[in-house]
Amino acid sequence: MIGALEAGGTKMICAVLQQDGTVADKLTLPTRTPAQTMPPMIEFFVKHKVEALGIGCFGPLDLDEASPTFGFITATPKLDWRFYDIVGEFKKALGVPVVMDTDVNCAALGEACFGSCKGLQDCVYITVGTGIGMGVLVNGKLVHGIQHPELGHIPVAPMAGDDYAGHCPYHGRCLEGMAAGPAMRERWGAPAQELNDRPEVWQLEAEYLAQGIMTCILAYAPRRIVLGGGVLHNPTLLPLVRSAVQRLLGGYVACPAVQKLEEYIVAPALGDAQALLGCMQLVRQ
Amino acid sequence: MIGALEAGGTKMICAVLQQDGTVADKLTLPTRTPAQTMPPMIEFFVKHKVEALGIGCFGPLDLDEASPTFGFITATPKLDWRFYDIVGEFKKALGVPVVMDTDVNCAALGEACFGSCKGLQDCVYITVGTGIGMGVLVNGKLVHGIQHPELGHIPVAPMAGDDYAGHCPYHGRCLEGMAAGPAMRERWGAPAQELNDRPEVWQLEAEYLAQGIMTCILAYAPRRIVLGGGVLHNPTLLPLVRSAVQRLLGGYVACPAVQKLEEYIVAPALGDAQALLGCMQLVRQ
Repeated sequence: MIGALEAGGTKMICAVLQQDGTVADKLTLPTRTPAQTMPPMIEFFVKHKVEALGIGCFGPLDLDEASPTFGFITATPKLDWRFYDIVGEFKKALGVPVVMDTDVNCAALGEACFGSCKGLQDCVYITVGTGIGMGVLVNGKLVHGIQHPELGHIPVAPMAGDDYAGHCPYHGRCLEGMAAGPAMRERWGAPAQELNDRPEVWQLEAEYLAQGIMTCILAYAPRRIVLGGGVLHNPTLLPLVRSAVQRLLGGYVACPAVQKLEEYIVAPALGDAQALLGCMQLVRQ
Repeated sequence: MIGALEAGGTKMICAVLQQDGTVADKLTLPTRTPAQTMPPMIEFFVKHKVEALGIGCFGPLDLDEASPTFGFITATPKLDWRFYDIVGEFKKALGVPVVMDTDVNCAALGEACFGSCKGLQDCVYITVGTGIGMGVLVNGKLVHGIQHPELGHIPVAPMAGDDYAGHCPYHGRCLEGMAAGPAMRERWGAPAQELNDRPEVWQLEAEYLAQGIMTCILAYAPRRIVLGGGVLHNPTLLPLVRSAVQRLLGGYVACPAVQKLEEYIVAPALGDAQALLGCMQLVRQ
């Protein structure tokens, strides 16, 4: 039995998985303080006698093995979890190996091993919701370096006539600041799911997401891009994004994969299970 | 003896290297048509009885082993070399193994093995000259996927009051379109080397390069970034870039490496030999 934890800013999803990925048991909790949230999670994993735990966690995380704060959640705006040693605490409590990566890197790994990108060594998973996160596999491995991809915060060119100030407390008008769920709510005065009958909302959203995807293509030349998250529940958005990406590329990337964008920029294939399956895969590796 | 070819849009630098990287002989030719340029290069490598050839070439290149045009230069604006099978032609003429990557990927590999990034598994080499190119190592390997990094063409946010239309024939106001040498010449009416006494030129240049570097940091979280190329000959530029990067990051990336930008964004250490040494390393791998 392998333990998997999808640690999100709003909720914690704990699961116990069999070797084939079948979920044997599951526990979902709201994310409160570590003192309130850690004990029931530990109890769940202890009860199931997990042999190892894989965590896909909201970031930023310290994943640099040479660092004294390796395995910590670092400069998160969720102050209770700031510089919290989540890997260390689980190791101590469970006495089993614990591995961690970002929630989106785990989702990318899940889709690469079992979903839309099965068998691909180079792919990107993008989620557009409360924030914009990207998980990335290059040459079959998750991208790290000194931290992990944080492409939600890349600079974007504002669209003509768009004077919205942006929603990101760090960078204002970065991709996330212009196009994540909270930016949509602030810009249009209603949450994304109440804006479905306003085509101008989705056209503008598509333009910004296309800039992010353009940067992804130029940075990683992935073999496929999976685009998910709550904002993508609007069914017009994905086709609009593809059209905008095609226009932005301007014929510059000549690869055949990029000529068929409906097979290149795709929806997730694993519902909302990709991150848990990615956690399991992280343990296996 | 290993052959190395730095194939540029303006000139071809052929070298023969001993195992320790010492250059035994060198030949520099202007880049004309393949019919004019290939025979003297082949003659040079045949004469030196090279056991293998590593090529660092201007792009875009097809580096996908599964592709029918693997080893070709693809959609380059240099029409004579468009869809030219450079790897195949050298293989046929020399009868030895031939490997190729982009000029900037080879430069990144050279700096990672012998120069400013010696021993680092994750690093980026950026050159700012006639174009803007970036070579990238992630987890110790060069980044590929369906193509190779082309980060010169990422979208950037225009600076306030900057109404320059951009110089890129594909994307207009992309990073390269706003900040490569030809853009500087067109914008300011003189080539970069004649603009040294105009601080406003270098401040603006630094702002755009900083956006590109910001995107690099968020995409790859590299352990170090090497910034070179003709435009960097202005000695005020590198410090201005560091300041602009620090401001753009806005404290978001908490890693210690990013707190010391003078050790994080650095000049090349190998003069102009990094690409040739990278070609040699490519052969060894």
